[in-house]
Amino acid sequence: MPQDSYLIGLIGSGIGPSLSPALHEREADRQGLRYLYRLIDLDTLGAAPEAVGDLLRAARDLGFDGLNITHPCKQLVGEHLDALAPQAEALGAVNTVVFSDGRAIGHNTDVTGFAASFARGLPDAPLERVVQLGAGGAGAAVAHATLTLGAGHITVTDALPDRAADLAASLNRHFGAGRAAAATPDRLAELLAGADGIVHATPTGMAAHPGLPLPAGLLHPGLWVAEVVYRPLETELLRAARAVGCATLDGGGMAAFQAADAFRLFTGREPDAGRMLADIAPLGDVMSVRD
Amino acid sequence: MPQDSYLIGLIGSGIGPSLSPALHEREADRQGLRYLYRLIDLDTLGAAPEAVGDLLRAARDLGFDGLNITHPCKQLVGEHLDALAPQAEALGAVNTVVFSDGRAIGHNTDVTGFAASFARGLPDAPLERVVQLGAGGAGAAVAHATLTLGAGHITVTDALPDRAADLAASLNRHFGAGRAAAATPDRLAELLAGADGIVHATPTGMAAHPGLPLPAGLLHPGLWVAEVVYRPLETELLRAARAVGCATLDGGGMAAFQAADAFRLFTGREPDAGRMLADIAPLGDVMSVRD
Repeated sequence: MPQDSYLIGLIGSGIGPSLSPALHEREADRQGLRYLYRLIDLDTLGAAPEAVGDLLRAARDLGFDGLNITHPCKQLVGEHLDALAPQAEALGAVNTVVFSDGRAIGHNTDVTGFAASFARGLPDAPLERVVQLGAGGAGAAVAHATLTLGAGHITVTDALPDRAADLAASLNRHFGAGRAAAATPDRLAELLAGADGIVHATPTGMAAHPGLPLPAGLLHPGLWVAEVVYRPLETELLRAARAVGCATLDGGGMAAFQAADAFRLFTGREPDAGRMLADIAPLGDVMSVRD
Repeated sequence: MPQDSYLIGLIGSGIGPSLSPALHEREADRQGLRYLYRLIDLDTLGAAPEAVGDLLRAARDLGFDGLNITHPCKQLVGEHLDALAPQAEALGAVNTVVFSDGRAIGHNTDVTGFAASFARGLPDAPLERVVQLGAGGAGAAVAHATLTLGAGHITVTDALPDRAADLAASLNRHFGAGRAAAATPDRLAELLAGADGIVHATPTGMAAHPGLPLPAGLLHPGLWVAEVVYRPLETELLRAARAVGCATLDGGGMAAFQAADAFRLFTGREPDAGRMLADIAPLGDVMSVRD
């Protein structure tokens, strides 16, 4: 008998507002699958990030088919798994765990999700020189995605210079020397003057961190702007970029495609990523109001 | 927002063929609830019965709304709970745990389930003198149910005389002296000659234990016969009893009503126990073929 029910969890901190339960369960409903997606919030449990190993084992014992993993556990969960898919191994971060035949396999659909969203939303964008703001976990994932898509060179800035330098060094090890560099934010004017586009991967623009991640005057019509923030979908950065004539990509696509890729890994069934993307906008609005 | 999704598990040993997932999920589907019922099998996990405490805590942490508990954990789980409902406390056995507001409350729907099935299936049965075969876990539950229904006196037999004596003593403590006695199986002829009915609560008649639990010649038309075995629904005992003219009650009702009572506890919604009972027959047939 083919499996027709799925139990999935999300382990992370402060995940109450996550859109993932609704994204996964709606797509499953359309496919006629019994599918339950539960939040396992470290804050609610009073658990440390290192508890992810115990929670993972418990989830496997209790019949979960898979897990999504988010902050602050993406780098911690790897050591508890039986194997890593290439994207997860290259990045050193896992956002999706599939339990199958007694094994736990780690994947990273943040990378594939951003790549799919970018290829769909900015298919003709030039990629010779890319500037990325933010070198945290999301930044590492989207930098891998951008270079995988064929970007010639990426310059990463971060308020923490060491973090930017570490990411650039890691990208050069993985994609070849000279593909990535780190810079301090005070060099943004010079960098953006000669760039093709900006990938924004800091929290600025989220409801809890309003504002712009760079001076608006640095934007010019020769840039495309790709956003990672998806709550709200319409960030101040995207508004400012469209006002000066930039092509833009909001963060909803990455959110939808990473969920679609995880759904495919969990179920072996092909999700309709377009439908999932269409679900994001109303969900995002609801969540913005709640925020 | 009213809760509209439920995650339930069953903890026990060798529970692969359980009908509970189908019984619960079908009723939930008819009520439009997202409901997933998972088996947590000690045998599959290689876990000891005493692991029930750890599994219970893990289930609560991972977002389960409740658990059913079966052999061999019904007597072991109580010490890990925050409170017991009266039926569970009286019986010293729990088959249903509800997680609510951070507390774990134990119930016993085997007792209420058998009582409801009996009241529905044999509403006019005389209860002055009842003979019960079997003093194990199921036997304790149905003896409590029968005395709660108003049985005047119950005599319990068991292949293990100490087990029968212990159950009789416990029943007398709980329901009042003189309501219960233990007897050895060699006294069945004498006991049944003067009895109103038989409650059968041993495994005999299940696919793995074929046969009759007593000599067929001891059955007479003045007896009703209530069966706990429900796989198959039509046991050799029920066939033999009907052949001599006894009123009979198969084990499907107890299975359906204990599930219905658990469903009500888990969801706060009223199940349609009649529909759940109607589900038992085809499910039971399928399971018999698989057995």
